[in-house]
Amino acid sequence: MPGESLSDVDAWLSDQTPRLLDELLAFLRIPSVSTDPAYAGHIAEAADLLLRRLARIGMDKVRLLEGGGHPSVFAERLDAPGAPTILLYGHYDVQPPEPLGLWHSPPFEPTIRDGRIFARGASDDKAPLWIALSALEGWLAVRGSLPVNVKVLLEGEEESGSRTLPEILARHGALLACDVMLSADGGRFRAGRASVNTSLRGILALELRLRTAAHDLHSGRYGGAVGNAAMALCRLLASLHDERNHVVVPGFFAGLRRPGNADIAAIHALALDEAAFLAEVGARPGAGEHGVPLLEAIWFRPTIEINGLTAGYQGAGGKTIVPCEASAKLTCRLGPGQEPRHVAGAVAAHLRAHCPGWADLTIEDHADGSAAYVVPDGDPFLAAISRTIEAVHGQPPVHVGLGGTLPIASMVKQALGVETLMLSYAVSDENMHAPNEFFRLSSFDEGLRAWAAVLPELARARA
Amino acid sequence: MPGESLSDVDAWLSDQTPRLLDELLAFLRIPSVSTDPAYAGHIAEAADLLLRRLARIGMDKVRLLEGGGHPSVFAERLDAPGAPTILLYGHYDVQPPEPLGLWHSPPFEPTIRDGRIFARGASDDKAPLWIALSALEGWLAVRGSLPVNVKVLLEGEEESGSRTLPEILARHGALLACDVMLSADGGRFRAGRASVNTSLRGILALELRLRTAAHDLHSGRYGGAVGNAAMALCRLLASLHDERNHVVVPGFFAGLRRPGNADIAAIHALALDEAAFLAEVGARPGAGEHGVPLLEAIWFRPTIEINGLTAGYQGAGGKTIVPCEASAKLTCRLGPGQEPRHVAGAVAAHLRAHCPGWADLTIEDHADGSAAYVVPDGDPFLAAISRTIEAVHGQPPVHVGLGGTLPIASMVKQALGVETLMLSYAVSDENMHAPNEFFRLSSFDEGLRAWAAVLPELARARA
Repeated sequence: MPGESLSDVDAWLSDQTPRLLDELLAFLRIPSVSTDPAYAGHIAEAADLLLRRLARIGMDKVRLLEGGGHPSVFAERLDAPGAPTILLYGHYDVQPPEPLGLWHSPPFEPTIRDGRIFARGASDDKAPLWIALSALEGWLAVRGSLPVNVKVLLEGEEESGSRTLPEILARHGALLACDVMLSADGGRFRAGRASVNTSLRGILALELRLRTAAHDLHSGRYGGAVGNAAMALCRLLASLHDERNHVVVPGFFAGLRRPGNADIAAIHALALDEAAFLAEVGARPGAGEHGVPLLEAIWFRPTIEINGLTAGYQGAGGKTIVPCEASAKLTCRLGPGQEPRHVAGAVAAHLRAHCPGWADLTIEDHADGSAAYVVPDGDPFLAAISRTIEAVHGQPPVHVGLGGTLPIASMVKQALGVETLMLSYAVSDENMHAPNEFFRLSSFDEGLRAWAAVLPELARARA
Repeated sequence: MPGESLSDVDAWLSDQTPRLLDELLAFLRIPSVSTDPAYAGHIAEAADLLLRRLARIGMDKVRLLEGGGHPSVFAERLDAPGAPTILLYGHYDVQPPEPLGLWHSPPFEPTIRDGRIFARGASDDKAPLWIALSALEGWLAVRGSLPVNVKVLLEGEEESGSRTLPEILARHGALLACDVMLSADGGRFRAGRASVNTSLRGILALELRLRTAAHDLHSGRYGGAVGNAAMALCRLLASLHDERNHVVVPGFFAGLRRPGNADIAAIHALALDEAAFLAEVGARPGAGEHGVPLLEAIWFRPTIEINGLTAGYQGAGGKTIVPCEASAKLTCRLGPGQEPRHVAGAVAAHLRAHCPGWADLTIEDHADGSAAYVVPDGDPFLAAISRTIEAVHGQPPVHVGLGGTLPIASMVKQALGVETLMLSYAVSDENMHAPNEFFRLSSFDEGLRAWAAVLPELARARA
């Protein structure tokens, strides 16, 4: 460690790991899906578990912060006068578990196999969050206080686009005042490579629905004369990209900043074997934007993805209909500089312009979206985190992008005026948002050491 | 009537109509869906109801004909030595009832409103079939015999593409030998206009499935680098037509015959208000093949329709995934002269040629398909039916196409060497294959009179 020895805290955490893991499994058993109202009771159950844990380990002001949706969990411990205050962030909600049939063990019955915990939310974000809280517990248990001022904000709507978080930040700005936010959500580039996240893509969600008739029609009696909503949808969605997989929506790229030289250099330094990276998930090259290196594509380039398609008859056998309705769920990942509302408008305008006259198009805008976020060069807290990672892993961390989105980063910048840094022990390959999500037990140990070490390191940093 | 007076038979049928309708409602209560194996027990129940009815009204040789799938119901009554033998055709299976939420009354609880019977299968084909059997019952009850030799063949797999009917025809060719087939399945052009069907389109079903990765992937961590199966599917399906809604699959139109002059003349004579026709079902013009009159399009032109699309997350809220799998159910309606296997090969070859290298395409061929069918000009039985319709409706029938498919027509031509004529009292607007399928009570009365009258008329026709 660059600073004082933490062998006492590390020994305590090591000794307590079996219990900490048992408690994590109980947390993972709660199906806290935020995107589907049917799970609301379980969201409350997960929040309650966190409230009890935070109180038990000795945090102060433990409470729920309401903003009109699923509440956030708050706690603080201000033991270090004169030191910075960090706002520790994580989220206790998870993605839906579907398709259930593809899980090798049930998503909400966490199962340990081959050194990995399999469960929905294991990697995103329950284990990373649990590591951070456990580091606080270790310091409080061994030293009786924290080396830096800590506030905790655990969100319940991250997987729903952090819908009411701006309201929570607005209502509770004084309580949440801090010098920097440190997120347990994020992700390492690879398990074996020390890295630190320095950028996030933004996100924007749209749902579109096409109607072509009052009801489904017999494909013999009407086929060839009436519009097929499924075909209209396919043609409309096919119009979003060209043959080189480049988005052709006018205005889509407005404001987009190219990655900086340091980012380009980091991508070159990583010398990623793109085909091998894709082969790990059973994919082949050629699907990305032609001419763009893979890491630049997933860290810095915007996308338009179809998340789901629904039209007509999907059961066993066939049904000879012309479907009258078809719908699609879309999300765009946004690059640095793109303005979410502008992009939403550009995509909607393109879809309206390309919708045939024989179909009615409805576009539902799910949320305000979230802009991309880039940690400023030279941020002193970033330097502190980098030193910690180098000490724990024995190599300096490479700067990586996340590809995904933490909507809170730009919200916090706006509401609280501080930057967001990430220290997550999730790894990109852990099937987040997919069947058989898992988290590495080895990451749990590494994460406990890093989080225990970063707290005094941050105490020495000053913006 | 051109021939003898049928006032006694008509009076009996009129008198018995309430009972005949009650029995029809019992038939409609059976959810005899043939496309989904879950309904197999109900298919058997519907066949059993027909066996009992045919025996009760006095038909001979009542039995099931097996061909490896759902059986056909057979009966005969050969009372007219020297007269032709007609093979009366109908089907007792129905389309799936989904989407259930759009029905105003449950699909298998037949409900009479505004002079219409609402139920799945009411129009296609249970009421038309019931009318034909009731006419036989009337003749047998009043006269003690039928004026023409009648064999009855009621199929249980019409909505599944008549999969095992060729086997049934092959095994029971001698039993089914006849001079002409007369189908109760088919459809009138309009309720107020006397018409006779003289052509059917063919059909072909394909299902395609695209895979782009081993499992669904996080759209942040992988979006922009891995293939989106839903997007690949949309682009692939969008490649089937040009902007004028013309199919661009090479070889698709091979062998297609243009409609004859008489057909073109009939279409002109009908002077269809295309916009009004479409408005009746809530559709707008422009979705058909540009430059092709609507009636020509639905009676004689081939199509490629998407019947259903499935990909990714379809539940409430969102899920930020790149779906690894996407599938579509397709059917083609075929025009006169197209060879189903050739068309299937052409469509599959086009799809394979347009599938990107980063996706795996699987094409499942559901059945052999069925060629289009056209009644030969000058057929003597067609003349007999036309005379009957003119007598019942007071106007000569216009020759119309059906648009839909009776796979049996080309099968019977091949297996038994006879033509198929249609005398159906279904009307095209009765929501066949869609929610709120219905049949007009007024058609029930008209149909009974026409079917009672056509029997002696056919006895006088000779090929």
